[in-house]
Amino acid sequence: MVLFILSMIGVGVFAASGALAAGRKDFDLLGVIVIALVTAVGGGTLRDLLLDRHPIFWVKEPSHLTVILASAALIFVYVRFRKPPLGALAVADALGLALFTISGAQVAEARGLPWLTVVVMGTITGSAGGVLRDVLSGEVPLLFRQTDLYATAAIAGVVFYLALEEVGFGQETASYIGMAAVACLRFAAIRWRLRLPVFHVPDEDWKPY
Amino acid sequence: MVLFILSMIGVGVFAASGALAAGRKDFDLLGVIVIALVTAVGGGTLRDLLLDRHPIFWVKEPSHLTVILASAALIFVYVRFRKPPLGALAVADALGLALFTISGAQVAEARGLPWLTVVVMGTITGSAGGVLRDVLSGEVPLLFRQTDLYATAAIAGVVFYLALEEVGFGQETASYIGMAAVACLRFAAIRWRLRLPVFHVPDEDWKPY
Amino acid sequence: MVLFILSMIGVGVFAASGALAAGRKDFDLLGVIVIALVTAVGGGTLRDLLLDRHPIFWVKEPSHLTVILASAALIFVYVRFRKPPLGALAVADALGLALFTISGAQVAEARGLPWLTVVVMGTITGSAGGVLRDVLSGEVPLLFRQTDLYATAAIAGVVFYLALEEVGFGQETASYIGMAAVACLRFAAIRWRLRLPVFHVPDEDWKPY
Repeated sequence: MVLFILSMIGVGVFAASGALAAGRKDFDLLGVIVIALVTAVGGGTLRDLLLDRHPIFWVKEPSHLTVILASAALIFVYVRFRKPPLGALAVADALGLALFTISGAQVAEARGLPWLTVVVMGTITGSAGGVLRDVLSGEVPLLFRQTDLYATAAIAGVVFYLALEEVGFGQETASYIGMAAVACLRFAAIRWRLRLPVFHVPDEDWKPY
Repeated sequence: MVLFILSMIGVGVFAASGALAAGRKDFDLLGVIVIALVTAVGGGTLRDLLLDRHPIFWVKEPSHLTVILASAALIFVYVRFRKPPLGALAVADALGLALFTISGAQVAEARGLPWLTVVVMGTITGSAGGVLRDVLSGEVPLLFRQTDLYATAAIAGVVFYLALEEVGFGQETASYIGMAAVACLRFAAIRWRLRLPVFHVPDEDWKPY
Repeated sequence: MVLFILSMIGVGVFAASGALAAGRKDFDLLGVIVIALVTAVGGGTLRDLLLDRHPIFWVKEPSHLTVILASAALIFVYVRFRKPPLGALAVADALGLALFTISGAQVAEARGLPWLTVVVMGTITGSAGGVLRDVLSGEVPLLFRQTDLYATAAIAGVVFYLALEEVGFGQETASYIGMAAVACLRFAAIRWRLRLPVFHVPDEDWKPY
């Protein structure tokens, strides 16, 4: 029950961030709602498709769609009167990332998949929605550019979660610690501008073949 | 049978519109054919994937692919001699949108899914091909920008179709009225430039977090 | 066994080409790894999704992911000291294209699908990873622009493979000849700049409707 409420909050926050990003591109209301939907359910949908997990989590249970529409509507109204609450959204987004990543990893784990696949599925669940948002908005995905750790925090959190289980922690305890690890790492990354190095290949050294 | 012929016409028209759009980007013949294919079958394919409906409609029955290739070839030849018949294509496209949207909604309905999911699946079936066309062409999807109602007409038509069923209309009657609603709304949108408002967030009010 | 080793080499080479392409865009290490992964497994994953073939080839057997990560790491180190070996990569890439295309076609063939679908699935398996790489990198897909034959070589190879089977060749023999055909056509295309014509539609002749 706590997890269900948390997951609804996560979906709502991802939708709000999608709606705001779409607002920067001057999309119309329909475009904003589509981007909000894709941002919020894109990662979990891709995971479910890749793992052949049907019905996909939002298909049979429409409360996710309802929360997303409500969240987008709230942003529409809010932004008319005030500046978007970016600080609060950043905190909520980190919590959403933590929750989705670890719960996505658990879905893969429950299928007995290898740990590398578990890490990939957790990361996809937490981060792929934002990549789809950017691709559909005609932007180079933020996730790939040098910014404060995001997917990397997710990856580290899943690895930590799996390691805790390996050394004997119960799954529930390990999952809470794993989520805390993702969120803390993300907060630390924002606070201290933690970033991965860039990989640079000079243009003249690469030609399509 | 009538529906089959209509659906082939719809696929053909979507393919033609895809081929023309690709022609603006100076793609080579292969690129044009891929864009034509994706535009024509993209929406239905996404719906089938999301609903785990296999074999996907064009995989076992190759007549869709054949019609798309023929349609692209026709456009290649036609455009050498005359300007593309944009008016006729716009009419046919509206009919294709109407047909695909309502039939896509019916697929979801037949699975007993909630009405919100039915609306989403109908809209995806009718509109997602054009979004994929734009993304693959390196354009910001037209569907999200402020233009004459398109997906919105589809959404309104599905809601109207479901409402008619709710008040007692038979499914077949309701579906024809629903299709007419989508097409008329689309024609009205083109004729009187009906558009949704833009949602604008100033750049300085948004930063990626 | 030979095929397994070849397929690992193919995956590694596609990953290397993805990593180099990402390097041109100044992505950070995570971005480079994601692009390498998508380039290497994107085509086969799309084929598996479209054919409802689960578990998807890399989900249960993590050696593909391991090879991709190793290949990306190798490129990171290599590029610090030398220019990327573009000639060798082009040769390996053509071999990878040949292998993936024909083996992708065989997957569809084994399901008794129509030959047009077999051609489409072979082409997707060999080429879609590169399209995803470009879309995720914010580039117009190279595959659609006028460059030396790539997907066209794949299509011709699959058609040739199917024709050989039709006239009585055994599947194994036909598949080796088909792979050789793809690779040779690709080499010939690079050597003699073989290209498809461009399809051009003047901008004023097209408007979105």
